[in-house]
Amino acid sequence: MKIDLHTHILPRDWPDLDAKYGYGGFVRLDHYKPCCARMMIGERFFREITDNAWDPKRRIEECDHAGVTMQVLSTVPVMFSYWAKPADALDLSRRLNDHIAEVVRKHPTRFAGLATIPLQDPDLAARELERCVRELGLRGAQIGTHVDANQYCHGSDCRNLDDTALDVVWSAAEQLEAAIFVHPWDMLGKKRMPKYWLPWLVGMPAETCLAICCMIFGGVFERFPKLRVAFAHGGGAFPFTIGRIEHAFHVRPDLVAIDNQTNPRSYLARPDDGGGVTPARFYVDSLVHDPDALKMLLKLFGARRVALGSDYPFPLGEANPGELIESMKELSPQDKTRLFSGTAREFLGLGRVGGGASS
Amino acid sequence: MKIDLHTHILPRDWPDLDAKYGYGGFVRLDHYKPCCARMMIGERFFREITDNAWDPKRRIEECDHAGVTMQVLSTVPVMFSYWAKPADALDLSRRLNDHIAEVVRKHPTRFAGLATIPLQDPDLAARELERCVRELGLRGAQIGTHVDANQYCHGSDCRNLDDTALDVVWSAAEQLEAAIFVHPWDMLGKKRMPKYWLPWLVGMPAETCLAICCMIFGGVFERFPKLRVAFAHGGGAFPFTIGRIEHAFHVRPDLVAIDNQTNPRSYLARPDDGGGVTPARFYVDSLVHDPDALKMLLKLFGARRVALGSDYPFPLGEANPGELIESMKELSPQDKTRLFSGTAREFLGLGRVGGGASS
Repeated sequence: MKIDLHTHILPRDWPDLDAKYGYGGFVRLDHYKPCCARMMIGERFFREITDNAWDPKRRIEECDHAGVTMQVLSTVPVMFSYWAKPADALDLSRRLNDHIAEVVRKHPTRFAGLATIPLQDPDLAARELERCVRELGLRGAQIGTHVDANQYCHGSDCRNLDDTALDVVWSAAEQLEAAIFVHPWDMLGKKRMPKYWLPWLVGMPAETCLAICCMIFGGVFERFPKLRVAFAHGGGAFPFTIGRIEHAFHVRPDLVAIDNQTNPRSYLARPDDGGGVTPARFYVDSLVHDPDALKMLLKLFGARRVALGSDYPFPLGEANPGELIESMKELSPQDKTRLFSGTAREFLGLGRVGGGASS
Repeated sequence: MKIDLHTHILPRDWPDLDAKYGYGGFVRLDHYKPCCARMMIGERFFREITDNAWDPKRRIEECDHAGVTMQVLSTVPVMFSYWAKPADALDLSRRLNDHIAEVVRKHPTRFAGLATIPLQDPDLAARELERCVRELGLRGAQIGTHVDANQYCHGSDCRNLDDTALDVVWSAAEQLEAAIFVHPWDMLGKKRMPKYWLPWLVGMPAETCLAICCMIFGGVFERFPKLRVAFAHGGGAFPFTIGRIEHAFHVRPDLVAIDNQTNPRSYLARPDDGGGVTPARFYVDSLVHDPDALKMLLKLFGARRVALGSDYPFPLGEANPGELIESMKELSPQDKTRLFSGTAREFLGLGRVGGGASS
């Protein structure tokens, strides 16, 4: 059994959002040829997608081919729209969430769903999360690594994931037992990266590392001990730089430990007093494209906290989900089972095999 | 024998640069108490330093205590001043370079030197590099990970290390057999990082990864095959994300391989046809603060391309230079010798033990 924690889906169609909300910046799909569409922002080309981005039947065919039992569906991060007016982002979120819920309802053994929520208004976000979990049966939400970078360019409000304004969201997630999947978006330094796809190659791992650091140093895991959070792309640059991050915590607590006095390394897996292993405090997906990186990930987080994630259906993902894990002969069958499905089931609170919205 | 590739030094005193050049933004030292000074930019406090930042005798005492034979001296990156008028940055560079050369001349068995060069004017930079190598006996230069981020905020000129305007610098370095040490500065996304020292913990590793990607994808190592380049902090986030970077090269060559068709992984160490190992194309220092990260570094680069670097005298560095390498029992004596001195000697072109300016 394979559960793919990290996949993206869109509806095939939605209204003209620029027209509906009265200002530009929203994504539209240009179905310019069969089975193929362009994601456009105004007249700017963002990305080309094929029908596996919106058609559940194509996805199920490809899952069957790859041996994937269940995909966890979340929107494409460019749809977060945290920059928009809160009411509009809520309206769009509801549309996307209703769509994902419908796909899950029709194929409850093949899909589980994560909502998107308008984080720029934490109260609205918490209420939409509640609706999605209680009424739609989604397993939680996918959120971005920060709320709105556009604001930072003007040096004003800075809302990283340590911002206590988000506590209402963490609190709701904890109470609802909702999983939070953190995905990079709107990458820092993107103006510095005009070539070579660098916002995706350098910006995304940095974004994810920034989000992990902010949640750790902001004390989020301390204030919300039952919160279940997973980070995309194996935690980005965090695993390789934990030594530097921990060292900074020790040598400059006046800068680093101002909101939380707990060593960042203590959020990772470590031997416990009983001779076992205390699991890491948060989860990561397995999408690192390199066996040595995956080994390092497993050492830091343990198989209990790493879940198969492929970034389907996008090319920067793992084309054959689970191939890297399969290739690693040093992994025990138990660890592989955990990576392929056990971790995702625990993270998502899936009570039984195939339990989607109906579990 | 231990050579510490990555240490920073300043003169004890220099003129009021804001007054000399007629505009603000330059660093001054406020010696507000014995053996201690504040680095100030205008009225903004930047960093507190102690006399080991400027006093060779204090440095030699500390080296003797730590078993460090030789320090490679370079300026503190905030002194690069790539944002300043070229003639002023050249004037400041010459002052800093003359100072480092003087320290090396007085203690040629304990110090070697790297210049700083005004990269905002590549011709001036190349000429100053030549002066420093030919006349002052410095081993090469320390440069930043980009030329001027301030420009990017206005969306204008973007000069990462792939910019062909820098070819004159690479060409000079190659002809002079000068070593180039790349150090992060002026970190991308710093406005997004108001707390927790994150520009140093997240921004610096991202900067270094960006610089490596730009030099690889920009084809610099192809155009200048004899160029010797080392990157600080173990290459930042690059080693852990090479899988993602290589995957991107394969799946989206239209975005990634536009200037260089060589697989980025081929710049790393790999088995060769003769049963040996082809060494990596560039060097990194060992400053990763984590044994598993250092193991990964050694696997990717090989001991032939990793050199002890401590970031002395700053707290984010390794307080006891070489302690992490010493602690790794799986390293052979040959590998340790290479990490402690062999790699640095090759990178710097030091012909013999203790050879500084006099070699």
